[in-house]
Amino acid sequence: MKTIDEVRLRNIVGKNNLKTDPSDLYIYGSDSSVHHAMPWAVVKPENTSQIQELMKYANENKIPVIPRGGGSGMCGQTVPVNGGIILDMKGMNRILEINLEDVYCRVEPGVVDDDLNLALKQYGVFYPPTPASSRIATIGGEIANNASGVRSVKYGATRDAVLGMKVVLPSGELVSLGAHTRVEASGYQLHKLIVGSEGTLGIVVEATLSFVPIPEFRCMGIANFDSLKDAGEAIGSIMASGSNPSMLELVDDVAIKAVNKTMDLGLKEVAAALIFEADGMVKEAVDYEINKMRKICENHRGADIYASYDPKERAKIFMGRKKLFPALSKYDNNLASTALADDMAVPYSKMAEMAGKIHEIAEKNGLIMTAYGHCGSGCMHTKILMDTKRKDQWSSAKKAITEVYEYVRSVNGTTSAEHGIGLSKAESFKIEKSDSLNLLNTIKQALDPNNILNPGKLMQAPENWVTATNLRYCVNS
Amino acid sequence: MKTIDEVRLRNIVGKNNLKTDPSDLYIYGSDSSVHHAMPWAVVKPENTSQIQELMKYANENKIPVIPRGGGSGMCGQTVPVNGGIILDMKGMNRILEINLEDVYCRVEPGVVDDDLNLALKQYGVFYPPTPASSRIATIGGEIANNASGVRSVKYGATRDAVLGMKVVLPSGELVSLGAHTRVEASGYQLHKLIVGSEGTLGIVVEATLSFVPIPEFRCMGIANFDSLKDAGEAIGSIMASGSNPSMLELVDDVAIKAVNKTMDLGLKEVAAALIFEADGMVKEAVDYEINKMRKICENHRGADIYASYDPKERAKIFMGRKKLFPALSKYDNNLASTALADDMAVPYSKMAEMAGKIHEIAEKNGLIMTAYGHCGSGCMHTKILMDTKRKDQWSSAKKAITEVYEYVRSVNGTTSAEHGIGLSKAESFKIEKSDSLNLLNTIKQALDPNNILNPGKLMQAPENWVTATNLRYCVNS
Repeated sequence: MKTIDEVRLRNIVGKNNLKTDPSDLYIYGSDSSVHHAMPWAVVKPENTSQIQELMKYANENKIPVIPRGGGSGMCGQTVPVNGGIILDMKGMNRILEINLEDVYCRVEPGVVDDDLNLALKQYGVFYPPTPASSRIATIGGEIANNASGVRSVKYGATRDAVLGMKVVLPSGELVSLGAHTRVEASGYQLHKLIVGSEGTLGIVVEATLSFVPIPEFRCMGIANFDSLKDAGEAIGSIMASGSNPSMLELVDDVAIKAVNKTMDLGLKEVAAALIFEADGMVKEAVDYEINKMRKICENHRGADIYASYDPKERAKIFMGRKKLFPALSKYDNNLASTALADDMAVPYSKMAEMAGKIHEIAEKNGLIMTAYGHCGSGCMHTKILMDTKRKDQWSSAKKAITEVYEYVRSVNGTTSAEHGIGLSKAESFKIEKSDSLNLLNTIKQALDPNNILNPGKLMQAPENWVTATNLRYCVNS
Repeated sequence: MKTIDEVRLRNIVGKNNLKTDPSDLYIYGSDSSVHHAMPWAVVKPENTSQIQELMKYANENKIPVIPRGGGSGMCGQTVPVNGGIILDMKGMNRILEINLEDVYCRVEPGVVDDDLNLALKQYGVFYPPTPASSRIATIGGEIANNASGVRSVKYGATRDAVLGMKVVLPSGELVSLGAHTRVEASGYQLHKLIVGSEGTLGIVVEATLSFVPIPEFRCMGIANFDSLKDAGEAIGSIMASGSNPSMLELVDDVAIKAVNKTMDLGLKEVAAALIFEADGMVKEAVDYEINKMRKICENHRGADIYASYDPKERAKIFMGRKKLFPALSKYDNNLASTALADDMAVPYSKMAEMAGKIHEIAEKNGLIMTAYGHCGSGCMHTKILMDTKRKDQWSSAKKAITEVYEYVRSVNGTTSAEHGIGLSKAESFKIEKSDSLNLLNTIKQALDPNNILNPGKLMQAPENWVTATNLRYCVNS
């Protein structure tokens, strides 16, 4: 471990914004992934010039710097595998401007997604790329991971909503990228390069985001299926039909059972269910979309189909999906729900096969896995439910992940849909991007020559994360 | 001028795909801009491996390579200011796949936009970023310039529609970027970096593009205004109201007069007109959008307001806008319509002021300038009508451009909305991006260390293009 110049850090961010006590550092050593590693210090900058100073110090001394938002990352993006300084960006959480005339807002990176949407709501608009973790996820973290969520099928991902940004480079230089206008063709779209770069190219200190009107009408429906294949094929048919859902979610039997165990929703324990939604300013148009999706579900043997405009009914339909992530931990008291192979994207026509593959691989490897996700945008999620104390379960999990991603790549899918790569998914990422790894490294090297920005992630991630990083779990040997 | 190894080039692309005759080269020396410069050779590759071979040859010998599509660029993007080899990409014009199930298509870069849309039309879908030059513009050129057009206000620009691509790097290496899925969070979004890079970072040899359903209903309207300010303010109000037009175009008095001179449309010669359109699958929703925009136009003193679903009526309304570009050359037989300061983007609330500024600057500098554009996406166009034989008019034009862009930057606008930077707009681009120029150069240097890909453009463009490049026009001294 390198020596950190605590005096200098204190001078930059102030006494209260520096943490070096091991018990504090421990907390910042993990995010929502399985990984853990100790940082050397945690600082919570309050403004851009503090970050510029910090970067100068870190760059001169080749100290890793890891920007961190809400810590909801699933793949170890903010776990300091090479040690270094964690930048807790939540100290910069001001909404700088909500410009209704020009239809954009400017925010600091530490703004929590839900807080932004609460502020926008009073003007009848919303920021759509919101992930499920919106209660804790920050805009900066969402940019780092090109996050998206249930509404990406209609409204796009973070990359689509970011018009511009200000970024501090490893040298401490501050640059403005992108623009404040809807369209822009002024050379390299560098703001789009920063989106998804997982804090490895620069520290976002301000973002200009577009927003859209909150629709007047929203109608949500649900359909049950006796086979996962039917549900998956319904998704494919809906998306190929030119439908324009504002949400199209899959939940499988494992997910449904998990929810039933934790909540009194009395969901029918079928093989799979689809939740679909349409929204708009005109009811007839919403009806049109809902009826179209209903019909397609019927054609694929969907049952118990039901849809409602009523906010309470909609909340009830969605409740199971919303609480799925915590519910999965309760599926079996002996099994933890781990974010391994947690998300991927495949072409629509492979959605049914992908869901089936997850179950098949789970069974083959003696694990329980669930298939769910924002399938309307090609996104599939899974969690591995396993006994984290058993070493053999980790080996099985590793095998299962490898098989899942082998399938994903074989059907022209991609390793991550919206959770990013970090550590957990780096193996498949490196295989998928094998022909552009040189290019990725070239860009990283050009922008961060001392390799101080979140090193050891993406193409730099260690070959075998199970052994290379500490796990958050106690594993019996 | 460097010596070109004609034998080697002939061996790579074949005898018929190499041009070295000066009369052929002359034609490839200009695009739709004011600039001209002679290339050393023109090659028309037929496949990716030929391009790989060519790049290896060029890179070894440090010979500039300039990829070229339809030649409809307005800013000199494909003008070989440093000489070199023009790659005429129209030899690679196959539509490789139209995948209706997975909602994407794969095309070679030389496919002409209209040809792609003709092929898609039979399946009831379309590729929306289409620019006005779609009859000649190629997908590769559109990617290079992040092109967009009348429908970008609703459907986005090229950067939004490109899911992935294959690119040949200066070394001859072939890389796959992006994915085949709607969402993707697998690390650096390098395909989004290539969009808008004007052929300076790599040669796109294949693109994966999303498409959308052709809407069942389209309604187009027009409103006349006695003042440009009123029309501009109507645009701002429409966009701030959360309207969702599929088109929102401004034409000013100069544009209207030009069209009347060339076509028997009998347009009322008012100060400005707005053309607005809404589309969708449900008539009630289209009605809603159209009525909303009508009402806002009325509130801003719009007159003669008229809207129609009828394709013939719509074509009539749009005809003037569609033929505007050629019509401007006929405004005055002594004046040429030059693509100088040809496009820019400003925040919506500045649209009225921007249009007024163009007229004010024109008058001050003894020029005729027109203000029009896809204002719904923040895009404003202008052309300078001038006597190109008069040297003083070039000086005036230069002054006018400088003043236009000074204004654009002062209101947080950006130098290009959709036509790119090339040579003509490089001066303003360099000022606008002054704080990120180092970063742009770093990326260019990292990806193209020998600076062979379209050198002398964007941040590398010569300080004063009027003297640094040849003009296509004969100017009396």
